Amino acid sequence: MRRTDEEFRTIWLSPDNVGVVQIIDQRVLPHDFRVCDLTTWQDGATAITEMLVRGAPLIGATAAWSLYLAARHGGYEETRSAAVGLLESRPTAVNLRWAIERVMAVANSHCDSDDLPVVLRAEAEAICDEDVQISLGIGRSGLELLRGIAEKKANRVNVLTHCNAGALATINWGTATAPIYMAHKEGIDVHVWVDETRPRNQGSQLTAWELGQRGVPHTLIVDNAGGHLMQHNEVDIVITGTDRTTRGGDVANKIGTYLKALAARDNGIPFYVALPSTTIDWTIADGIAEIPIEERDPREVSHIYGELDGRTVVVNTAAADTAISNYAFDVTPARLITGLITERGICAASEAGLSELFPDLLAK
Amino acid sequence: MRRTDEEFRTIWLSPDNVGVVQIIDQRVLPHDFRVCDLTTWQDGATAITEMLVRGAPLIGATAAWSLYLAARHGGYEETRSAAVGLLESRPTAVNLRWAIERVMAVANSHCDSDDLPVVLRAEAEAICDEDVQISLGIGRSGLELLRGIAEKKANRVNVLTHCNAGALATINWGTATAPIYMAHKEGIDVHVWVDETRPRNQGSQLTAWELGQRGVPHTLIVDNAGGHLMQHNEVDIVITGTDRTTRGGDVANKIGTYLKALAARDNGIPFYVALPSTTIDWTIADGIAEIPIEERDPREVSHIYGELDGRTVVVNTAAADTAISNYAFDVTPARLITGLITERGICAASEAGLSELFPDLLAK
Repeated sequence: MRRTDEEFRTIWLSPDNVGVVQIIDQRVLPHDFRVCDLTTWQDGATAITEMLVRGAPLIGATAAWSLYLAARHGGYEETRSAAVGLLESRPTAVNLRWAIERVMAVANSHCDSDDLPVVLRAEAEAICDEDVQISLGIGRSGLELLRGIAEKKANRVNVLTHCNAGALATINWGTATAPIYMAHKEGIDVHVWVDETRPRNQGSQLTAWELGQRGVPHTLIVDNAGGHLMQHNEVDIVITGTDRTTRGGDVANKIGTYLKALAARDNGIPFYVALPSTTIDWTIADGIAEIPIEERDPREVSHIYGELDGRTVVVNTAAADTAISNYAFDVTPARLITGLITERGICAASEAGLSELFPDLLAK
Repeated sequence: MRRTDEEFRTIWLSPDNVGVVQIIDQRVLPHDFRVCDLTTWQDGATAITEMLVRGAPLIGATAAWSLYLAARHGGYEETRSAAVGLLESRPTAVNLRWAIERVMAVANSHCDSDDLPVVLRAEAEAICDEDVQISLGIGRSGLELLRGIAEKKANRVNVLTHCNAGALATINWGTATAPIYMAHKEGIDVHVWVDETRPRNQGSQLTAWELGQRGVPHTLIVDNAGGHLMQHNEVDIVITGTDRTTRGGDVANKIGTYLKALAARDNGIPFYVALPSTTIDWTIADGIAEIPIEERDPREVSHIYGELDGRTVVVNTAAADTAISNYAFDVTPARLITGLITERGICAASEAGLSELFPDLLAK
């Protein structure tokens, strides 16, 4: 991730204090850039619940670092409590469970060791380093698609994306955005339609900002606009991220993804989902029936972060007595997905497709 | 339209001064209720362009009243100039052209008369009175559909609507909302999913408010949520309005309508469009190719009206240097529309369907 020519990750151990993990408060981007300190595992859980951090891979990494903080404070016992508490912080993203299980496997084999914090720190760092490599792998896989479109087109390649499956959702480079950053770097004329992404505006506040920081041409649109653009040949490919992918290829992602997949299908436009294999839930097949969809605070719909006279404020846009429903995700059935872009290549959104790329994971 | 138990129309001649037409500034609802005076036709044009008034029928009525104001100020000559100026105020809604042509036909036959203002006042009043009757006719047609659903269901009838095709978009009762108000009045347990409707939030700021004023149960959702609700059997019928309907049954309506129609089709849910016959454009058949889609100020996307500490403010939600595109409408092809609800009954979204209900209009 870049900010005014400086390279960042989205989570890191403080260089001054090994008892402090640092994150960016993504709620107040792009108008403010606030680095926040996490000193307890509960700080980490709150950062996940309150969405200072979001995005499936970053949620997993934050949980891993939170377990390290727990080990520092209270050893194995507190680490075990933290694992239980963190697991409840968000219900839909499966990386959270994956990261906790991975770190706890290490913790369990060092439960009596004074080195527990050191070992868990190494595991959290490994998860983050691997996530960067995974993003780069996804980038290489997806780059082929963008190259293919560019070769057949005289003018710019138009990608539509929904929510933020960008560097800010991962440790760096992102999932859906990694191919875009690589294409831009190698000189492909790529332009991104950025869905605003209500209710939390991750598109306008995160994706547009991070693309801008790397100089990638993009245009912000409301979530309602994608169908119109597709009808008028203004979209060549849709690439989104995912919070949980079933072994059958159904994809739970930010609410509204399903509507874009329908519009892509109706207009013959390829619809791809970019994902690290850590977001695959091999235990379930039918996403619509089986993935729990988080309902969040109605205030996320009625109350909007914005800039007023140079400061970030929160305004109420709805009538005071209006009931509000706030589902955070929807499920796009595999039949609407052209392919899954993973760190090991691109496959069909199906059990056969995923099994072929990840036979080792399926076996677990 | 109701406000704290008082009945309103959306536009009326001031009871104190026949030189003043009054409207409600719909930009600042629901937090403020401001009545604005129009004293010149240019005031009317600005009210349309700046969207103090919006909704196809109300735009037409505002144009009619503006022509009356022009006649008062500068007779026939100014009325003719006003007709040209008003026609350009918004490009998509066809009622604007319809209302101007209707009033100008009267003006042309009274061009030398001192009674021109009196005659045009009567015409504007007639347009408004007729619009109320049209809404009631649409209401009666659509009520049958809601009754039919209620008879087959044990629990509440869930209607999803997009934007505001309510009392505030017409003179009273609305188009999409008229059947809902009637169903509620006769005791049908009807509940409305109200799309927020970005970028101008006509759902959260107008539809939710006006349903609330008449006590109709409703829940505000983001535009992204409709597909998820339909997948989970939470929507029985979709009813929207339209700004222009082609003779082939294609419907231009607020951007995002097309996405809801796709989701309805994918889930086998009936998708109806409610319209007065004044929104039918008999001159064109293919909506996607032929209806001009208005592009509006990017600030409508980035800047949001909201309430902060008791006052209405405008905040910026996007990064300062982000390019923004703001299409106001999209076109839903007739193939996705179950039926058109009109003041003369319900018909198929097709030339055959419309011709059968409106043979007199087709002939013109």
